Amino acid sequence: MVNGIVLPIKKVFSLVDSRITVEIKDEGRQLQGRLVAVDEYLNIHMDETVEMNRGTRRNLGTVVIRGNNILTIAPTA
Amino acid sequence: MVNGIVLPIKKVFSLVDSRITVEIKDEGRQLQGRLVAVDEYLNIHMDETVEMNRGTRRNLGTVVIRGNNILTIAPTA
Amino acid sequence: MVNGIVLPIKKVFSLVDSRITVEIKDEGRQLQGRLVAVDEYLNIHMDETVEMNRGTRRNLGTVVIRGNNILTIAPTA
Amino acid sequence: MVNGIVLPIKKVFSLVDSRITVEIKDEGRQLQGRLVAVDEYLNIHMDETVEMNRGTRRNLGTVVIRGNNILTIAPTA
Amino acid sequence: MVNGIVLPIKKVFSLVDSRITVEIKDEGRQLQGRLVAVDEYLNIHMDETVEMNRGTRRNLGTVVIRGNNILTIAPTA
Amino acid sequence: MVNGIVLPIKKVFSLVDSRITVEIKDEGRQLQGRLVAVDEYLNIHMDETVEMNRGTRRNLGTVVIRGNNILTIAPTA
Repeated sequence: MVNGIVLPIKKVFSLVDSRITVEIKDEGRQLQGRLVAVDEYLNIHMDETVEMNRGTRRNLGTVVIRGNNILTIAPTA
Repeated sequence: MVNGIVLPIKKVFSLVDSRITVEIKDEGRQLQGRLVAVDEYLNIHMDETVEMNRGTRRNLGTVVIRGNNILTIAPTA
Repeated sequence: MVNGIVLPIKKVFSLVDSRITVEIKDEGRQLQGRLVAVDEYLNIHMDETVEMNRGTRRNLGTVVIRGNNILTIAPTA
Repeated sequence: MVNGIVLPIKKVFSLVDSRITVEIKDEGRQLQGRLVAVDEYLNIHMDETVEMNRGTRRNLGTVVIRGNNILTIAPTA
Repeated sequence: MVNGIVLPIKKVFSLVDSRITVEIKDEGRQLQGRLVAVDEYLNIHMDETVEMNRGTRRNLGTVVIRGNNILTIAPTA
Repeated sequence: MVNGIVLPIKKVFSLVDSRITVEIKDEGRQLQGRLVAVDEYLNIHMDETVEMNRGTRRNLGTVVIRGNNILTIAPTA
């Protein structure tokens, strides 16, 4: 098993078509939705997106998120 | 269907000539307007731009937005 | 008309030698002046620069601005 | 001994499969877990992740962390 | 006169060996000193550096400044 | 003397194996220690690291610091 060559981006690619939770840097905000596409910069294309912000929910539909402003990406529990 | 090779940037390219909403990182501000051009860094050239900031509107006309300071790009609902 | 290949940077190149307004990220500050040179990172070389900061003006003369800290570039109205 | 060609990233590669502590920029938060994979941008794939935030602990499971928002990476003491 | 190909970085290269003022992003701080070297990322090597921070001065001697955290570079007036 | 081609990174390479002070962006914090390795992004591998934060000291041992979050690097006085 050669761990060093399994890239973190591969984990995110494996989540395409499933539901993910994206935490935004510095803002206490999360976006949850279906991962449509992702690239090497961790730019994210999601649909059915819901913003969770300190207890409030807002439907955003389709969004593209700039990768550098993302703190974490995880499968939705 | 090979999801991994459909890039997020393609979604944004598909919005050229239509109206988009750009959310600025950290600022609670949105810019709405017509997408004229976009590049791989998500730098945005918009015209007919209106800034929406906590209930106030301001006409900005033509602007170029630096991609790294953009949080999300979405079609205007 | 092939919009996808007209880059946002081309808009900024077209403003060389004319007056521009540069909005700085997070700071409520604008720099106005004559655009001398710009590169692909949106690094800006301006002269005759005036800083506008919440009603105060300050003459800065010649400055080079790091592109990543720029929010927007627009022709001065 | 040719120090200049031993890259910092090599130190992080050596921590794959062991427990690390990642400090997030600006947030007073740490993520601890097992390092699964890392790339040249210091993007991190961790599992068994626990968030430590001013005395509170939260289990996060598997996460991918965007490298530019990481301040430090260290072996967990 | 072909403005488009005169890069902003050339302005900074022309300041090597002379005194410059570097304004740090978000911090209300300036570093003044002699520019020893600069690269394409606007990383700066200065010596005889003095930090100016809201009326206080501090001698820093030799420093290397990471380019992305620089807001502006200008010749010291 | 061809200043333009002496890169700032060379100054940092020259500090490998000696003691450096790294100032973190936006945080009023400094890390002091022995520079083990550095790369072109100014990612830093240090050991014997001590954090200095508004009068308090904390031993960190070995850390890797992401370059973009570093404001300055200097030889420890």
